[in-house]
Amino acid sequence: ETLIDWDAEAAEKGGFDTYMLKEIYEQPQALTNTLIGRLHDETGEVNLDINLDPASFKRISIIACGTAFYAGLVGEYLIEQLARIPVEVDVASEYRYRSPLVSENTLAIVISQSGETIDTLEALREAKKQGARTLGVINAKGSSMTREVDDVLYIHAGPEIGVASTKAYTAMVSAMLMLALWLGRARGTLNEELGRELLQGARELPRLVEESLQPERVENIKRVAQKYHQARDYLFLGRGVNSPTAFEGALKLKEISYIHAEAYAAGEMKHGPIALIDQNLPVVVIATESFLLEKTISNIQEVKARSGKVIAVVSDGDTEAARHADDVIYVPRAAEMVSPVVNAVAMQLLAYFTATALDRDVDKPRNLAKSVTVE
Amino acid sequence: ETLIDWDAEAAEKGGFDTYMLKEIYEQPQALTNTLIGRLHDETGEVNLDINLDPASFKRISIIACGTAFYAGLVGEYLIEQLARIPVEVDVASEYRYRSPLVSENTLAIVISQSGETIDTLEALREAKKQGARTLGVINAKGSSMTREVDDVLYIHAGPEIGVASTKAYTAMVSAMLMLALWLGRARGTLNEELGRELLQGARELPRLVEESLQPERVENIKRVAQKYHQARDYLFLGRGVNSPTAFEGALKLKEISYIHAEAYAAGEMKHGPIALIDQNLPVVVIATESFLLEKTISNIQEVKARSGKVIAVVSDGDTEAARHADDVIYVPRAAEMVSPVVNAVAMQLLAYFTATALDRDVDKPRNLAKSVTVE
Repeated sequence: ETLIDWDAEAAEKGGFDTYMLKEIYEQPQALTNTLIGRLHDETGEVNLDINLDPASFKRISIIACGTAFYAGLVGEYLIEQLARIPVEVDVASEYRYRSPLVSENTLAIVISQSGETIDTLEALREAKKQGARTLGVINAKGSSMTREVDDVLYIHAGPEIGVASTKAYTAMVSAMLMLALWLGRARGTLNEELGRELLQGARELPRLVEESLQPERVENIKRVAQKYHQARDYLFLGRGVNSPTAFEGALKLKEISYIHAEAYAAGEMKHGPIALIDQNLPVVVIATESFLLEKTISNIQEVKARSGKVIAVVSDGDTEAARHADDVIYVPRAAEMVSPVVNAVAMQLLAYFTATALDRDVDKPRNLAKSVTVE
Repeated sequence: ETLIDWDAEAAEKGGFDTYMLKEIYEQPQALTNTLIGRLHDETGEVNLDINLDPASFKRISIIACGTAFYAGLVGEYLIEQLARIPVEVDVASEYRYRSPLVSENTLAIVISQSGETIDTLEALREAKKQGARTLGVINAKGSSMTREVDDVLYIHAGPEIGVASTKAYTAMVSAMLMLALWLGRARGTLNEELGRELLQGARELPRLVEESLQPERVENIKRVAQKYHQARDYLFLGRGVNSPTAFEGALKLKEISYIHAEAYAAGEMKHGPIALIDQNLPVVVIATESFLLEKTISNIQEVKARSGKVIAVVSDGDTEAARHADDVIYVPRAAEMVSPVVNAVAMQLLAYFTATALDRDVDKPRNLAKSVTVE
């Protein structure tokens, strides 16, 4: 049960071309650190060492920016499903100025890698002023937010140097999964069997992410990235708990390759973005194991019918979704509710190899700062 | 107090090149029909003829697709501000499959021009099954949704033939404004002075939209559209109640010009999309009268610092925001909370003249259907 030390040593590139690639490969260890000591197979218990009464909340507000906002959207889905509490997720720069509705039964969760993101910090202060109880899902110890929240759930991802977040994102999503399990158990809304299944699923995440990084999988994603790296635009589609995975995939590609990638909930495609589809547009479709997989396969067919190029992200062993796609990225099979962590790794690698094929400076993309501490 | 007849006659192009342009110009009349008989200056009363108890709701879910979803986002902002009820807005295709949290204190509002959008209709059925009371904000009389909701607030926009919604959108937004005023008054959360000011602002909307369509304004927008019509991408930014205006502007441009336009809440720009900005990217910034205008001007300066081209949408008489922009679209000055209706007209015209400069079939854009009645 050792955590990685946050020293300068650990922050070096250690054989990798870039910090970002190193951090992608650190994910099995980072996730081990996120999960360690917190989930108990035998008892099904989730021990997050949070001094807030999980039964006392009537409403949860999740507040974040950028990548952390997408982790918040996964959290919204999981908490509403497992703990049956209404959750809303707000972009911090909007939340802080919208006179948010808050009561003492509101839990405000702020998510931030650095713990210093100014909009999130100010939104946290606003939520506190209005009477919310507050929890931080944060990576950097001793950061400003950690000193101002009622309690912290550290994600223990270790230092992240690459500007585009990778291991912090998957660690945040894993933390949100644990929070949902904790809330669901404490409130008695989580059926025991599903609870154990998801707890088991969460514990397998480091291994599944390790598998996601097997050389032949990475090579395949590199091949797909190189095939489409000249594309001017990209569309990403996903449903339900993997709709945020599509958003995160588009953001990652945009950040480091400067390709204009945009994501939609797959069901929204017909209400506008479908007008963009032609033979020049690669469309990444998250089509991993899901109770809605059939609907997603319909989306794939619609894209194909308009001559779009489909890159399907598919669970190992699935042939149906794969059959309709131009290119397939196979990922280890995972329970749907934990799959956003596994699928995110494929998104990261696709963005990474697209950006390197375009000779971008992936660790320091133009115009971006690692931590946005000015408004 | 006459409503436009929904006959074949009224649906003809009547001198305009396209249905879309005709419908843009019909907005002063459409909005008059939306508002007529519902707002009373003397008493400040809002009479929507809705048989639901406005004091009984603890939570509101707004459910819609595409353009109507963005009208829902304006509604969320206004209802939370004026009636202090928590509101969430869901894409219908997501809502219907996410086991939504609903109680008898939940009001589910579905927004649809046609009243036939299949995802929205199924989401409505799901909300009813879970015990929600339901209200439709709908244009087409006798449509499926009107028969299944507890009550209807018709938007009375008249028949809309162009695939890209114009007058239905501004009528939906106006309807959401009236709903927010109605709820705020009934619940005693709306201060009387603000209530009167907004009621007055709403009543002025047909005139303000009429002014927005003055020939010199339209010519100016046409000039801007033609200047940038070769752009491959467009970014749209807005804050607060006009963040949905940015989303709607991007959707409109995408739908009929096939230019890849994407919108963000302005404060999110630094968390990713700023990487896209270079001298080839026009950025439309909604910078009309607002208590946050100063922040938006900072965004304009950030875009300029990265060589982006700024098209600022600015209230008549404002010089500060205009000073930093490459091109300015002046719009009639309106109170911030009613301004999304006025600003939407500029978005429509920008999309329209971009699409016609590119020789697109604006009334029947590729791949799109007017009303999406299959999943």
